[in-house]
Amino acid sequence: MNERCVLVTGFAPFAGEARNPSFEIVRRLDGERLGAHRIVGAFLPVVFGAAAAGLEGLLDTHRPELALAIGQAGGRDSLSLERVAINLVDARIADNSGMQPIDVEVVRGAPSAYFASLPLKAMRAAMLAAGVPTTLSLSAGSFVCNEVFYALCHLRATRDARMRSGFLHVPWLPEQAVDHPGQPSMALETMLTGVRAGLACALATVDDLHVPGGSTH
Amino acid sequence: MNERCVLVTGFAPFAGEARNPSFEIVRRLDGERLGAHRIVGAFLPVVFGAAAAGLEGLLDTHRPELALAIGQAGGRDSLSLERVAINLVDARIADNSGMQPIDVEVVRGAPSAYFASLPLKAMRAAMLAAGVPTTLSLSAGSFVCNEVFYALCHLRATRDARMRSGFLHVPWLPEQAVDHPGQPSMALETMLTGVRAGLACALATVDDLHVPGGSTH
Amino acid sequence: MNERCVLVTGFAPFAGEARNPSFEIVRRLDGERLGAHRIVGAFLPVVFGAAAAGLEGLLDTHRPELALAIGQAGGRDSLSLERVAINLVDARIADNSGMQPIDVEVVRGAPSAYFASLPLKAMRAAMLAAGVPTTLSLSAGSFVCNEVFYALCHLRATRDARMRSGFLHVPWLPEQAVDHPGQPSMALETMLTGVRAGLACALATVDDLHVPGGSTH
Amino acid sequence: MNERCVLVTGFAPFAGEARNPSFEIVRRLDGERLGAHRIVGAFLPVVFGAAAAGLEGLLDTHRPELALAIGQAGGRDSLSLERVAINLVDARIADNSGMQPIDVEVVRGAPSAYFASLPLKAMRAAMLAAGVPTTLSLSAGSFVCNEVFYALCHLRATRDARMRSGFLHVPWLPEQAVDHPGQPSMALETMLTGVRAGLACALATVDDLHVPGGSTH
Repeated sequence: MNERCVLVTGFAPFAGEARNPSFEIVRRLDGERLGAHRIVGAFLPVVFGAAAAGLEGLLDTHRPELALAIGQAGGRDSLSLERVAINLVDARIADNSGMQPIDVEVVRGAPSAYFASLPLKAMRAAMLAAGVPTTLSLSAGSFVCNEVFYALCHLRATRDARMRSGFLHVPWLPEQAVDHPGQPSMALETMLTGVRAGLACALATVDDLHVPGGSTH
Repeated sequence: MNERCVLVTGFAPFAGEARNPSFEIVRRLDGERLGAHRIVGAFLPVVFGAAAAGLEGLLDTHRPELALAIGQAGGRDSLSLERVAINLVDARIADNSGMQPIDVEVVRGAPSAYFASLPLKAMRAAMLAAGVPTTLSLSAGSFVCNEVFYALCHLRATRDARMRSGFLHVPWLPEQAVDHPGQPSMALETMLTGVRAGLACALATVDDLHVPGGSTH
Repeated sequence: MNERCVLVTGFAPFAGEARNPSFEIVRRLDGERLGAHRIVGAFLPVVFGAAAAGLEGLLDTHRPELALAIGQAGGRDSLSLERVAINLVDARIADNSGMQPIDVEVVRGAPSAYFASLPLKAMRAAMLAAGVPTTLSLSAGSFVCNEVFYALCHLRATRDARMRSGFLHVPWLPEQAVDHPGQPSMALETMLTGVRAGLACALATVDDLHVPGGSTH
Repeated sequence: MNERCVLVTGFAPFAGEARNPSFEIVRRLDGERLGAHRIVGAFLPVVFGAAAAGLEGLLDTHRPELALAIGQAGGRDSLSLERVAINLVDARIADNSGMQPIDVEVVRGAPSAYFASLPLKAMRAAMLAAGVPTTLSLSAGSFVCNEVFYALCHLRATRDARMRSGFLHVPWLPEQAVDHPGQPSMALETMLTGVRAGLACALATVDDLHVPGGSTH
C-alpha cells in the first residue's frame, strides 16, 4: 500500500551561491507528516532538461497527491506563490552545467502556459495568518524554476490530473543576503512556517477563495 | 487604397489619476509617419470587455500591419516591453465602470497565454540606443492592460496572422509621481523617443535578436 | 558593588503597529551576560521628551559602559548601525501622545550633530560574519529614534565620556510585514543573533576598522 | 557694481559615467535671469579638497546671495533637497584623482554638521507644484557632494552669513540609466523645471513653511 504523499522539491545552489534556501527547506520537511500525508522532499539540479527529467522520475516513484516545487528568488522579500508557468526558456545566466538556452520552448508544441492547480489564494491567506509575508506572483521567470514549474503542470495535464501542483519562490537566506547589500532576506524558520501552513491549507481546501489577488501591471 | 498603417492605442486615466501617459503618447503620435507607414493613435476605456471590444473595432477599421497597445504601469522605472499575455482577469481594483472581476478568463476556452509577435529584443536594443531605459517583462498583470494585450494576440491568432502585435507598459509621468513620493517617473518626451525608436525598429526587423532577455525568477 | 553593565533600550509599538521588534529584542536580551558584563534591557515610550527623559533616568540608574538604543525602521531590509544623530525634530507622524513637533531642536543650543562612539565598522563586520545583513546608515531620521540617539550622545558628551553609545535600527518582524505587502522583514532570532554579535564585538574592540563604509549620496 | 547673483555649481562625471546631470543643468542655467538676479553656473571637480577649494574661489569671485550646489545621486527617483551636511568624509569609491579618504573630517575641528539655510520646504512645495518629483533628504552621503555641501555651509557660517545656501541631489539621466537596468532616472528638462522653480521660490521666500518634512527613520 502506498502511503498518501506530498512531494516538495528544492534546487541545488546556483549563480555562485553556496546555499539555496529551497534545498534547506526540503531537507527539513522530508519525512514530516501533514495529517494523513507524508512529505517526501527531493532535490533537483539547476540544469535545463535534467531538472524536468528528475521531476518526472520523482512523480513516477512517489505518485503524490500534491506537488510543490520550490526555488530561490534572490531579491524578493516574501514567499511568492506562482500562478503561471510559461512555455519559454530564456536564460539570463548559465545553468549549473554551463548551458544558457535562449528563446526555446520547455516542451515543443505544448501550450503557451499553464496555471497552478493549487488553491493559491487560500494558501496565501493561511500563510499570512501564520505570520509569514506571502504574495501571489504572475511570473516565475524563464529559467530553470519556470521550466520545472511548467514541466510539473504539463505532466499533470498529460498524465495525472488528480495531482494538484504549484511552485513557490522564496527569498535569500540572511546568510546569503550578507553578500547582497541592500537586498531583503528571510530566515529559514520563517520560510518553514510558511510552507507548512501553505501545504496544510492546500490539503484541506477544495475550492479556492474568491478574493482579489491580481496586479494592475 | 488603404495606406499602410501602424496602430497605437492608449488608455483613459484610471485609479484616481487625472492623466494617463499612454493617452498622451498616443495623442502625440497620431498622424505621424514612420517611413511608408502612418501612425493611427486611438483610445480605449479602462473597462473590462469594452476595452477589448474597442480594440476589435479599431483593428477592423484600420487593418494595421503592426499594433502596439500602451498602458500605464505606475511604479515602474522603465519602458517595459511585455512578452506574455495571459487568459486571466483578476482585478486588484475596480475598473472605470466599477466592475472588479476576479479569476475569470479573458476569452472563454481560449489558450492560457500568447506571446507577443513583435521583435522585442531588437526593439529593446533600439530603444536603449536612443537613450531610453527599457526592459523586457514577463507579466503584464491581470487587469485591463493584460486583457487588451490578450485580446490583441487572440484576434491576431484567430483572424489576421499577418499583423504583428505587442504591448508596452510605461511609468508614471513626473506630474503624476509628485503624488506618489518615492516612486519613479519618466518624462513624456523620453517616452515618445522610446516608442518611436521601438516602432521604427519593429517595422524594419523580421528576425528578432538572439540575445538573453529573460529573468531567473 | 555595581556589576559592569551594557544598556540596551527598545521602544513601545507605534504608528498603529501591535508590536515593535526593538521591544522584543530588549525583552529577550535583558539579564543575559556578555563575558564580564550583564545586559540591562529597558523600554522607552514613543513620546518626544519622555523618551529622552526616560533614557537619562536609565543612565543614572545603571551607569552602563556601553549603551545601544534600538528602534524600528519599517521598510528597511537590514540591521542598520546609525552613524549620525542630528539636533532636529521633524515628526512625519504624531508620537504616541499625539504630539507632532516640527523643526525644533532636540536640545536647545546644543551641537548640530553627534557621531556614534561605538566601533561601527568592526561591529558591522562581526554581524555580517554571524550571517546577519547589516549596513551603516548616515541618517536615523528626525523622529523619536533620532531624539533618543541624540540625547544619548549629548549625555555622553556632557556627563560621562567613558560610556560608548550608539543606535541600531531594525526592520519589521515578518508578523508585521504581512500587513505591508512588498516590504522586507527580518525574524526576531536573526535580529538577536546580530545584536549579540555586535555588542560582543563592541566590548572587545577599542579601535574601529579602517575600511570604507560611506555612501556617495 | 556687482549684479545680484545666484551661484549654482555642478560636478564633472565620475564613477565611470560619461555624463553628470548636475553638469548639464548648470551649463543650461548659466547666464539665465531670475527676476533681478543673474544665475552663474560653474563646475567643480569630483576630487576631495579641490572641490571645496574651487567652491571657495567661486564664492570669492561672485559673492552670490544664494548658492545651490548640485550633484548626482544615481539610483534616486526624485530631486532631493538635502537638509544636513556632516563633517565626515568616508569615500565608498575613489574620487576622480584616485583618492579614497576614510573617516576624516571635511574641516578639522569644525562643527559636526550644518543645516541648509534655504527654505527647503517651501522650495519642495514649489517644485512639486511645477510637476517635478521632489523630496527632502536627511543625508547627502559622505563623498565629494557632502564635502562641497559642508564647505558651503562652513564658509557661510564663518565668512558670509548673508548668503543662503543648500545642496540638491538629482537622479541619473535616462541616457545613463540605460546602463543601470531597474534604476530610475529623470529627464534633463524635468530637472531644469524643478531647479528653476526651486530657485525662484528661494529668492522670494524668507520664512520657510511650517509643515512636516521629516522621516521616522
